[in-house]
Amino acid sequence: MKVKLGGEIKNYPAVWLKDDVVKFIDQRALPHEFTIFEARSYQDVAEAINTMIVRGAPAIGVAAAYGMALAARQPDASLESASEVLFATRPTAYDLDFALNYMKDACGTESVSAEKAAEAARSYADKIIERCKKIGENGEGLIKDGMNILTHCNAGALATVEYGTALAPMRLAAGKGKKFFVYVDETRPRLQGAKLTAWELNNEDIPCAVIADNAAGYYMKNKDIDIVITGADRIAALGDAANKIGTYEKAVLAKENGIPFYIAAPVSTFDADIQKGEDIPIENRDPEEVLELDGRKITPEGVDAKNPAFDVTPAKYIEGFITEIGILKPDQLKDTIFSKKISF
Amino acid sequence: MKVKLGGEIKNYPAVWLKDDVVKFIDQRALPHEFTIFEARSYQDVAEAINTMIVRGAPAIGVAAAYGMALAARQPDASLESASEVLFATRPTAYDLDFALNYMKDACGTESVSAEKAAEAARSYADKIIERCKKIGENGEGLIKDGMNILTHCNAGALATVEYGTALAPMRLAAGKGKKFFVYVDETRPRLQGAKLTAWELNNEDIPCAVIADNAAGYYMKNKDIDIVITGADRIAALGDAANKIGTYEKAVLAKENGIPFYIAAPVSTFDADIQKGEDIPIENRDPEEVLELDGRKITPEGVDAKNPAFDVTPAKYIEGFITEIGILKPDQLKDTIFSKKISF
Repeated sequence: MKVKLGGEIKNYPAVWLKDDVVKFIDQRALPHEFTIFEARSYQDVAEAINTMIVRGAPAIGVAAAYGMALAARQPDASLESASEVLFATRPTAYDLDFALNYMKDACGTESVSAEKAAEAARSYADKIIERCKKIGENGEGLIKDGMNILTHCNAGALATVEYGTALAPMRLAAGKGKKFFVYVDETRPRLQGAKLTAWELNNEDIPCAVIADNAAGYYMKNKDIDIVITGADRIAALGDAANKIGTYEKAVLAKENGIPFYIAAPVSTFDADIQKGEDIPIENRDPEEVLELDGRKITPEGVDAKNPAFDVTPAKYIEGFITEIGILKPDQLKDTIFSKKISF
Repeated sequence: MKVKLGGEIKNYPAVWLKDDVVKFIDQRALPHEFTIFEARSYQDVAEAINTMIVRGAPAIGVAAAYGMALAARQPDASLESASEVLFATRPTAYDLDFALNYMKDACGTESVSAEKAAEAARSYADKIIERCKKIGENGEGLIKDGMNILTHCNAGALATVEYGTALAPMRLAAGKGKKFFVYVDETRPRLQGAKLTAWELNNEDIPCAVIADNAAGYYMKNKDIDIVITGADRIAALGDAANKIGTYEKAVLAKENGIPFYIAAPVSTFDADIQKGEDIPIENRDPEEVLELDGRKITPEGVDAKNPAFDVTPAKYIEGFITEIGILKPDQLKDTIFSKKISF
């Protein structure tokens, strides 16, 4: 992704493997500081996922794959135990399961060489990048000149290594010279929209404005928004989709106002083993994320908070899924993405 | 309202007139500091409204009435010019128009004694307090033991001098020993829920939790919320209601999930001269309120924000209005609140 640094434009992926170190853009420090976190063990990678140095389902998957590559170098580690530790970091993103299974399949149950594990992890990352680019190509046609788009949270390159899921069609449309405007939900409590999506769009010179999450409905009702595109963390077989808390609200409001609501995601986010949204595990995070903002207490002493990190948008609110194999209606998932004919 | 200060419980109104000074709990400093702002002229009162030292439609109305009382003491001021300055502070709250008209009617067009003007302003404040108490009595029956209530922004004593509008039924239900729980939307960008409503409920020992605005839909869909009650800033003749940005989102989500959505407001918030919500003036506030939080920049340099302060909830989403004359359906407003038979 483009990163404007001191007047220059550089290119960075969100996460990459360099020799025996996994490097991450530290997403906790953005947009004010651009720093690189270095993980030298699968435990470091688990910490990076846990503390949200890296977040976003596809990027979590890639980070986990690289973590497995590091484990293959660690004399005291087994792929099995590394997989367990990495799997336990966050419950909602299906890409994490998917990537760990990919790595276990690629590396086998016998001891694997560090080179082979690194090659498998790099291959996983390359496939995710390629699939996100394809999502961009497949979704780009939805974006017309003059459109106003709403997005929630960050489903950009930071969340997927490169291109993004929801932001991939925008990057490709901008690359073709299309003019459009993006309303960015700030996405409390962690402000991934205000901090990360705004940073990515600004680096790409795509016009945007941050809005309070509360204002999205206002703009939808005023017909100021033409299309909503978000990412997802896990999509069930019937098309119900878990994504960042607040996504469900936007989907209901989009439906109510006749605005098409799309979810962009690669095959690694689709969980064939879960039928319905109700069965997707939802992470509850530390209430301090709500009680504080950037480490500053905003609520009175003695007041509690609740902090579900994700919600589930039922399939009936979803106009389509923008995937690497095309744009699919929820009822088309069964015979396409979930038909098991897609090799990864 | 009850205020816990250094281990003691004291009683304060949100705004009051003491001799020739209007005193306000400075709502910008809550919940961390409890300070009193003193206004010694109508210009000071206008500043207090402008800078949101005081906010909430009924409290803005009372502040304006007190501002007129100060103007009657100021040798260089006329009620007419004071009224113009106060009226120009904020566009959406109808209580401001209502209170200024009340004061002009009470004081006449001729020069009025400072005593008479102060008496009229105190009478206006007393009537608002009495009406809010009545709103509490009329709405209290909606709250059943074991219920979970959602509220948005602050429609408490801070917004109305005493009792509140949305919070009045909760105060009275708690006073009767009913047990219930309140989900408090934090209400970005200015966090009136997290800062003010949580502070009021905590002072009253009413159990509550602050949630990100994004999480309200999650709890509604999970059937964790039984009723939604908010205040309003202006209600049009057909029952469309302007309130803090995000209220529309909650109303649509409540409807979608079969949860009754109520607005609590006194007659001073109902504007007979405006038929439909589209005609209610909506204030756009400084984008910095979104770009910063408590003075700290959260977004990247060079990124813009949009900041509408209110939205309009169409009557079709509103189960009823909790008023001082009873709970009214939107289609009952015409023959009740708007029949002009209510003297204030």
